[in-house]
Amino acid sequence: MFKKILIANRGEIALRIIRTCKEMGIKTVAVYSTADKESLHVRFADEAVCIGPPPSAQSYLNMPNLISAAEITNADAIHPGYGFLSENAEFSRICAEHNIKFIGASPEMINAMGDKASAKDTMKKAGVPTIPGSDGLLKSAEEGKKLAKKIKYPVIIKATAGGGGRGMRIIKSEEEFDKAWNDARTESKAAFGNDGIYLEKFIEEPRHIEIQLIGDQHGQVAHLSERDCSIQRRHQKLVEETPSPFITDDLRDRMGKAAIKGAKAINYEGVGTIEFLVDKHREFYFMEMNTRIQVEHPITEEVIDYDLIKEQIKVAAGEKITGKNYYPKMHAIECRINAEDPKNNFRPSPGKITNLHVPGGHGVRVDSHVYSGYTIPSNYDSMIAKLIVSAQTREEALVKMKRALSEFVIEGIKTTVPFHLKLMDDPGFKEGNFTTAYLDNFDFGAL
Amino acid sequence: MFKKILIANRGEIALRIIRTCKEMGIKTVAVYSTADKESLHVRFADEAVCIGPPPSAQSYLNMPNLISAAEITNADAIHPGYGFLSENAEFSRICAEHNIKFIGASPEMINAMGDKASAKDTMKKAGVPTIPGSDGLLKSAEEGKKLAKKIKYPVIIKATAGGGGRGMRIIKSEEEFDKAWNDARTESKAAFGNDGIYLEKFIEEPRHIEIQLIGDQHGQVAHLSERDCSIQRRHQKLVEETPSPFITDDLRDRMGKAAIKGAKAINYEGVGTIEFLVDKHREFYFMEMNTRIQVEHPITEEVIDYDLIKEQIKVAAGEKITGKNYYPKMHAIECRINAEDPKNNFRPSPGKITNLHVPGGHGVRVDSHVYSGYTIPSNYDSMIAKLIVSAQTREEALVKMKRALSEFVIEGIKTTVPFHLKLMDDPGFKEGNFTTAYLDNFDFGAL
Repeated sequence: MFKKILIANRGEIALRIIRTCKEMGIKTVAVYSTADKESLHVRFADEAVCIGPPPSAQSYLNMPNLISAAEITNADAIHPGYGFLSENAEFSRICAEHNIKFIGASPEMINAMGDKASAKDTMKKAGVPTIPGSDGLLKSAEEGKKLAKKIKYPVIIKATAGGGGRGMRIIKSEEEFDKAWNDARTESKAAFGNDGIYLEKFIEEPRHIEIQLIGDQHGQVAHLSERDCSIQRRHQKLVEETPSPFITDDLRDRMGKAAIKGAKAINYEGVGTIEFLVDKHREFYFMEMNTRIQVEHPITEEVIDYDLIKEQIKVAAGEKITGKNYYPKMHAIECRINAEDPKNNFRPSPGKITNLHVPGGHGVRVDSHVYSGYTIPSNYDSMIAKLIVSAQTREEALVKMKRALSEFVIEGIKTTVPFHLKLMDDPGFKEGNFTTAYLDNFDFGAL
Repeated sequence: MFKKILIANRGEIALRIIRTCKEMGIKTVAVYSTADKESLHVRFADEAVCIGPPPSAQSYLNMPNLISAAEITNADAIHPGYGFLSENAEFSRICAEHNIKFIGASPEMINAMGDKASAKDTMKKAGVPTIPGSDGLLKSAEEGKKLAKKIKYPVIIKATAGGGGRGMRIIKSEEEFDKAWNDARTESKAAFGNDGIYLEKFIEEPRHIEIQLIGDQHGQVAHLSERDCSIQRRHQKLVEETPSPFITDDLRDRMGKAAIKGAKAINYEGVGTIEFLVDKHREFYFMEMNTRIQVEHPITEEVIDYDLIKEQIKVAAGEKITGKNYYPKMHAIECRINAEDPKNNFRPSPGKITNLHVPGGHGVRVDSHVYSGYTIPSNYDSMIAKLIVSAQTREEALVKMKRALSEFVIEGIKTTVPFHLKLMDDPGFKEGNFTTAYLDNFDFGAL
């Protein structure tokens, strides 16, 4: 087992990793930028090394400084957390070159999953469902119609140079095809000077549902069921839960098996997540694979009694897993508490937390790096806490979350707590009836 | 179900009850003394009524004021928590007279268990093992020897007027009897002017292990396994855990069955606990029954996924239980964090908490009513927080507790955190090898 791990990250995830290392008897090295010197991860680690000023390019992304810090402190492994260098193939390679174990994916795996097109290709070959569509640009409307007939309507055609919805048309039947084709090409030509068009199956009422995976160095891969992350605003997850209110046991099994197949195809080692889009017919399609721990990993931990960081460290050290899959025994929800003003377009609200009181009691977990008197720097991500509740049923978890949110006191800055409080009372959300577009029609002004 | 519950208590247990009521959709009324007006239970309840000044006789024990508060606010039930009026038969009776449901035992049950001698008698008749001994005073040494032979040595003889160990002798065999008898009588006569002596079996290396019970109004009683509360200082529990490291599955079953038998004998309704002494031979003896929720109830909740306050309220409202017993699925430990100086004879240390940071993360629960800036009044119990951890194994729970304790920041007052930190490293405690006398030889000076 590792003797000392350097944590190449900040904030709650740095603290999260330190906690598990302490419980495993592994020494920790925190690194910090000058903006983070008052951070709790610095206080709670066994050692701490300043690695430069903000912005991150000069500190948390500064590979030579990180490697130096690891060498100076004699760390035998680096845990990258999420974000920053966690999916950087170059950093993974440099760590290996310096005989420091990178607690994450190999450069090959990162590269295989880092490029969307090749990731999709790899998964398709492995038999994982991907979104069907044209191989590159369509040559004619006829070719498009032929393909659409094969993959079934509705389909969507998109301008290859497109953006912001221009040059894009949803087509529900063959009768609509020619007009949509002509309109899209004209619009695309006018907007981008390019009328190249490709076609994909249109995913109706998509949900973002991901499968947590763990693989060891001996070829075993297991899944830990799903997380439903459909509650997003501009592709930023705000609320996650497990089990998904939309998923059946059969679908969980099929998605789990597909995810394992995909991970095995790239000999995956470590914890990782395959994100799927699931349509209203409960068909699922590969979106991407994250070759690292996810922000929302605690909800999985709560429903299966499992420490994902601990298991991640163990497989990085060469330990075997049993290969047994895990299924949720309870229901867990996570709300991301961000220093943002939800009434004001989620504008970041850095500054000093003048008073902090965190909720507690049965079934409530808080993962946070902030404290009363802490000043949130403006240089980084605005997440200040993850509030996680678990209960026997989804209904109980919802009321527990509402109760816990109502106890959360954070003074001096704006936070997303009022948004979450309203969401817990929202009829559609309570029914479990939501897609990734759910927040498009949410009345943020009425918070 | 009740519409509104008045909580006739303060501190963490008042907050604990409010939390569950919120989750059940039941309105809450907090009551508070003038010393407690800044308390969190006042802030988090739907309504709050001041019931007088300290000391407690004028407020938390003031029955007319409590009943008035319940009537003014239209509360249909009163939850007494623990301590204060929770085991007061008179209050239970007065609540019933006012058509307010007392969420606790009936006057008859409280009376049956309130007097130690009659409680022991009731349990003995019900077939629950009690400590064998003389019925009242011994008439002669011969009578004592006869009884000792029957119940087996070692036995203890005690002065009926005694205290502080005077007039008390442990007797290991019949040869020692006469001398001990004469010495005890002489000593007792000299010290108390009374040489009345009674005899009991001497419990060797006793552990305090209690069984959690729940009974409904329809005659069903179930047990929720045990809590080991042997770590005590002057009969004050400091650390509790479940499962007990000393208990076998067979002993758990036998104790559980005996506890159910005892509760059924008094038609017990509500949550309650039977405390046993367990000797080194794993024989157990009834000590007392608490007809209320216990301080240490959260460890049971953590290992069986169960909200004891919720179930308590449900049975008080007439709901049925299944009668199924519950067994620990994990290991949980609770440390009582008191505002006391463990290096200075646990002298109370009231005052202002100038800075507070509570631990968090996987498997950590904090039940507390204090916050940064809160002033602990000197009028009440000194417990300021319960830190509860749960993990798959005892070993993991111990390191998790140590990790959580190391994160606890409480500035401005002295607390028992340093004691708990030392205990988690104590070899005997780590081995699970301790009795109720364990702390007698603990080096508190070296904290």
